[in-house]
Amino acid sequence: MNVTATMQTLQAENTAFLREVREIMPEFDPVRLGQVMHDQICELYPICRSITGNGVRETLRLMQQWIPLEIQEVASGTPVFDWVVPLEWNIRDAFVKSEKGQRVIDFQKSNLHVVNYSVPFRGKMRLEELKTHLFTLPDRPDSIPYRTSYYSESWGFCLSHRDFLRLADEEYEVCIDSSLEPGHLTYGEYILPGTSSEEVIVSTHVCHPSLCNDNLSGIIVATQWARLLRKIQARRFTYRFLFIPGTIGSITWLALNESSVIPRIRHGLVLTGVGDSGCLTYKKSRRGDAVVDRVLSHLLGQRGLKGKVLDFSPYGYDERQFCSPGFNLPMGRLSRSVHGTFPEYHTSGDNLAFVRPDSLEETLRLCLMVFRVLEGNRVMVNLSPKCEPQLGRRGLYRAIGGQSDAGAIEMAMLWVLNLADGTRSLLDIAERANLPFLTIETAAQALERHHLLEEKSFAVRA
Amino acid sequence: MNVTATMQTLQAENTAFLREVREIMPEFDPVRLGQVMHDQICELYPICRSITGNGVRETLRLMQQWIPLEIQEVASGTPVFDWVVPLEWNIRDAFVKSEKGQRVIDFQKSNLHVVNYSVPFRGKMRLEELKTHLFTLPDRPDSIPYRTSYYSESWGFCLSHRDFLRLADEEYEVCIDSSLEPGHLTYGEYILPGTSSEEVIVSTHVCHPSLCNDNLSGIIVATQWARLLRKIQARRFTYRFLFIPGTIGSITWLALNESSVIPRIRHGLVLTGVGDSGCLTYKKSRRGDAVVDRVLSHLLGQRGLKGKVLDFSPYGYDERQFCSPGFNLPMGRLSRSVHGTFPEYHTSGDNLAFVRPDSLEETLRLCLMVFRVLEGNRVMVNLSPKCEPQLGRRGLYRAIGGQSDAGAIEMAMLWVLNLADGTRSLLDIAERANLPFLTIETAAQALERHHLLEEKSFAVRA
Amino acid sequence: MNVTATMQTLQAENTAFLREVREIMPEFDPVRLGQVMHDQICELYPICRSITGNGVRETLRLMQQWIPLEIQEVASGTPVFDWVVPLEWNIRDAFVKSEKGQRVIDFQKSNLHVVNYSVPFRGKMRLEELKTHLFTLPDRPDSIPYRTSYYSESWGFCLSHRDFLRLADEEYEVCIDSSLEPGHLTYGEYILPGTSSEEVIVSTHVCHPSLCNDNLSGIIVATQWARLLRKIQARRFTYRFLFIPGTIGSITWLALNESSVIPRIRHGLVLTGVGDSGCLTYKKSRRGDAVVDRVLSHLLGQRGLKGKVLDFSPYGYDERQFCSPGFNLPMGRLSRSVHGTFPEYHTSGDNLAFVRPDSLEETLRLCLMVFRVLEGNRVMVNLSPKCEPQLGRRGLYRAIGGQSDAGAIEMAMLWVLNLADGTRSLLDIAERANLPFLTIETAAQALERHHLLEEKSFAVRA
Repeated sequence: MNVTATMQTLQAENTAFLREVREIMPEFDPVRLGQVMHDQICELYPICRSITGNGVRETLRLMQQWIPLEIQEVASGTPVFDWVVPLEWNIRDAFVKSEKGQRVIDFQKSNLHVVNYSVPFRGKMRLEELKTHLFTLPDRPDSIPYRTSYYSESWGFCLSHRDFLRLADEEYEVCIDSSLEPGHLTYGEYILPGTSSEEVIVSTHVCHPSLCNDNLSGIIVATQWARLLRKIQARRFTYRFLFIPGTIGSITWLALNESSVIPRIRHGLVLTGVGDSGCLTYKKSRRGDAVVDRVLSHLLGQRGLKGKVLDFSPYGYDERQFCSPGFNLPMGRLSRSVHGTFPEYHTSGDNLAFVRPDSLEETLRLCLMVFRVLEGNRVMVNLSPKCEPQLGRRGLYRAIGGQSDAGAIEMAMLWVLNLADGTRSLLDIAERANLPFLTIETAAQALERHHLLEEKSFAVRA
Repeated sequence: MNVTATMQTLQAENTAFLREVREIMPEFDPVRLGQVMHDQICELYPICRSITGNGVRETLRLMQQWIPLEIQEVASGTPVFDWVVPLEWNIRDAFVKSEKGQRVIDFQKSNLHVVNYSVPFRGKMRLEELKTHLFTLPDRPDSIPYRTSYYSESWGFCLSHRDFLRLADEEYEVCIDSSLEPGHLTYGEYILPGTSSEEVIVSTHVCHPSLCNDNLSGIIVATQWARLLRKIQARRFTYRFLFIPGTIGSITWLALNESSVIPRIRHGLVLTGVGDSGCLTYKKSRRGDAVVDRVLSHLLGQRGLKGKVLDFSPYGYDERQFCSPGFNLPMGRLSRSVHGTFPEYHTSGDNLAFVRPDSLEETLRLCLMVFRVLEGNRVMVNLSPKCEPQLGRRGLYRAIGGQSDAGAIEMAMLWVLNLADGTRSLLDIAERANLPFLTIETAAQALERHHLLEEKSFAVRA
Repeated sequence: MNVTATMQTLQAENTAFLREVREIMPEFDPVRLGQVMHDQICELYPICRSITGNGVRETLRLMQQWIPLEIQEVASGTPVFDWVVPLEWNIRDAFVKSEKGQRVIDFQKSNLHVVNYSVPFRGKMRLEELKTHLFTLPDRPDSIPYRTSYYSESWGFCLSHRDFLRLADEEYEVCIDSSLEPGHLTYGEYILPGTSSEEVIVSTHVCHPSLCNDNLSGIIVATQWARLLRKIQARRFTYRFLFIPGTIGSITWLALNESSVIPRIRHGLVLTGVGDSGCLTYKKSRRGDAVVDRVLSHLLGQRGLKGKVLDFSPYGYDERQFCSPGFNLPMGRLSRSVHGTFPEYHTSGDNLAFVRPDSLEETLRLCLMVFRVLEGNRVMVNLSPKCEPQLGRRGLYRAIGGQSDAGAIEMAMLWVLNLADGTRSLLDIAERANLPFLTIETAAQALERHHLLEEKSFAVRA
């Protein structure tokens, strides 16, 4: 099935969902947006990123074309909880040259060839010795693995197993023209203020070099999400988008924002690996019953979207830090295929063909729905709680009785009236009624217009 | 399978259950009672009932042959919460006459032919115009639909689709000889006092014209239940049977009894559609864990009765009002086939053949068991809680040890002794032990006679 | 499959488990221990035990070869809750002799031939009269049933149905040379003190005559468990092993120790029927969520051991008394095949061939693991709860990043760090992580050595 055919199928399945998104953003054009996001990934793909250095800086600067993010620099040596911001790593060139002078491994061809954070090295050695510095994947002989050595000083090269087997037993010239020096850790931050100072955090890691799903897809979906949210005037929450190096970046950000921002966080999402063809997958926060957990479970359980929901575990991406017991933030992770479960993971196979415009777009649509539910999830009170109010004379109920079914909106109104006793949010009601949130909200708005329902509060427990 | 054969099968399945009912009512004769109830339905079938008017009055007066219920009248215009008691509707005749003077639609043949609550009308019109007042069921071409127009002033006729297709394109004389005038809403109430003023409410709607399952079955099973309860001397609860028009009737009753009766309600049941051949179905109260919910779930889960238990939803019959959030009464609904799920629903197919003596009788038996459990559900305390008491020397345990099984009553005694710590009712114990309530109660009574167990309280949380 | 082959299979399945046991007891030799336990059962098999008398005394004295248990005597007539310690029963001989002088039923051949606690009797009678005193199993015609008459004064004989059918219609001489006189109830107790006075109780009944699984298996596994625990220096809990007559023995022990010992009991296990080839079966305490319930559920759910977990019911062995509502002790029961569910139960078929060395040994291993988890189940606190601590620089994490899987111990460390917030025990963490307790404990110990984790408390709610 080609991409166009698949998209048609997907869009048929997603019609209801798409209609809902268009209600909040009429100009939403999925086909165009999917292609735009893929183009942006192409633009960022060649850059050699790492947890520090010019690769991240360049990436963030290119992103400033699309959203006006602020670039932050934190000096090497800054203590951040149990860690220290490391020396800044930069690399210009790296190769292994045969006796004939041929670059048999060449950083210029793919930045994955160098173990990320390799210390500078120059020397000559026989294959025997060189081998202790080489990483391959015998099971995936055509792929270059992605390896890092952030916190132990060493150097190495990664190459396809097929190329490895071709290496002759001879002396090689090895060069890693890198530097590891005091500098900075760089990250980007983009804040969209809302009427409330309570925050929703969206975080993606930006430290992976030429890998597309992990995590250019997360970077770009977050970027487009931010762009679209800018166009919506009425935002209750403040939205903060973080583009940070994995692990040390989130630790650094948490350390610097511990007392200022963290107490205001109400919901959050880590976005990673959101562009492949696998189904949408949400991993719950450590709490397991945070509102964001329930919103994603609700949306992924509704018609038109297929998705899985996983329990929290302490392995994965930056949710490890956000959900460490000292913070225990209400943040889950949105992905498609789960890291480590597909063969392209952390190899050169995670390339431009591995991420798809339609997958990127579907993820983005889900993000918009998450926004929609978080913003609309109010606690309501039925102002006419003794018996049902007479909906018919208000034009809210069919005139001729006796048929067997109430319409979807009628049912939703009955659910809202029955459950809106000031203890339940609209999400609670949608879950109990097993109806889409937007149907429940539409019903609630109709009842509100007729003064049968009143908002009690917006803020619900995180 | 004919009715007799089916009843034999049913009775074989229900032997254990039947034996239990006979323990509390030795003269209980299922075959006779089933037939009696069906005969009573036949008697009430032809009357044209509505939410007000002489149809309900005549129905209640006929029922006074069987139980001495009181007939209440509430004047049109009385405000009841968000509603107002409507004008009283009565109808004498209605027809559509062809140019040849033939009644092509005739109220005298079936009261379903007129949209219930049609305003008076006389006139002549061509088919084209008439059609906008006609209701049919194209999918069930031989059935007349049942339609109402209580709260919007209009008129209409219902007819089979087959008859509709036969209507020639000519001018018709239309007559609806009805009246819609200030009068009363009428309902019946029958109270059986108990030693306690705490109440059990049984409610059925009485507003449907010539429809049998919906709800002559509910009316008659409630009537017979009341008759049988009168014969039982020792009743702890006060039982109140309500025969009320749907929706506006329950709203009116709730409005009039809000401060007097409602605080005393401990359990309740709405009875509707209890005479068809479908399996017994209980729909839980809004609370979901009310004692009545647990009693019905227990009984429908026991051997000999097959039944389904459904969660609450805010659509259906008068449980919509009793379980509105301002009341949230512990009342569920007992039905057989669920409204709207069978093709005869709200059509002329819901006739005398659709309700069956054996189904009516099985429902009645279940009602008696509900009574039995509600009355017997006491909280007990083991007076010898440290180790087991020596049952053997009291003749409560087999003399020769070593066999592998304890008898059912021995097991029930062990369960009661083990769990009767003053926090659990006999129903709690029956649920935990997965034994029938009556087995647990029999064991408890044996232990009580030997002063090993004592009643702590009767009243349990509703 | 012969015993050796089965053991090989079992040991293959149990390799992981065996390795864990050897970590705490390097000299553990399953094959030898299984045989030793079977030999000990052979030694105790011929003795005619009952709830009182010399049979229990002799059994306990023989057991003193293996563990230095104390023998306690409680006088007949002592009131114990609702019961009284009965007269002491002893028997020297019993037979039924034919007219030709042949012993057609002979106590000397099997002590099961006499109904346990038969009163003394001598007399002559025809078969007709004798039959009212004979017990057989028509469905198991070759087996002698085991019957008792502790609390109603009577006498009787048990025999195979085949032998019963051979009895001629003649006069028989009947002799039961027993005595039922004031004396004592005898039980054994063995206490292994720990650093804490909080106790773990292990109880087995010792009143069954020549039956092997029920309960020489329980007696011998408890004995070996005690022997092995003596060799372990560091015990936090005090372990108390009870060898008591069924029902009256536990009632007596509870009555005598109510104020002294019972408040100190934290965990307990009744051991019965633990030597047959059926799978391990744990029956939960009345509480259902006691730590011992969770420990056994955890261990029986782990790889290498197959087992079932049953909910509490008030029928069975001495858990009936320990879990009576006045005590409600956190004690479950460990068995293999459940009493009453196998044909050999309470018959002469429960013989030396019915219990197997490998089954005894597997049970013992599980007991050692229970000890291990109870002792090691501490509540820990992560000392670095804000973000993950840097495991890499402590040598606790792999140096080269980018692979897809964390190792088992790395995962366990992440789980411990994430969940050790002072509210969860290591067992809680093992359950949540779905990892074996020892893996979690190993991870916790590694983190403790690096001062990343600290013990908050040992004592956890029972």
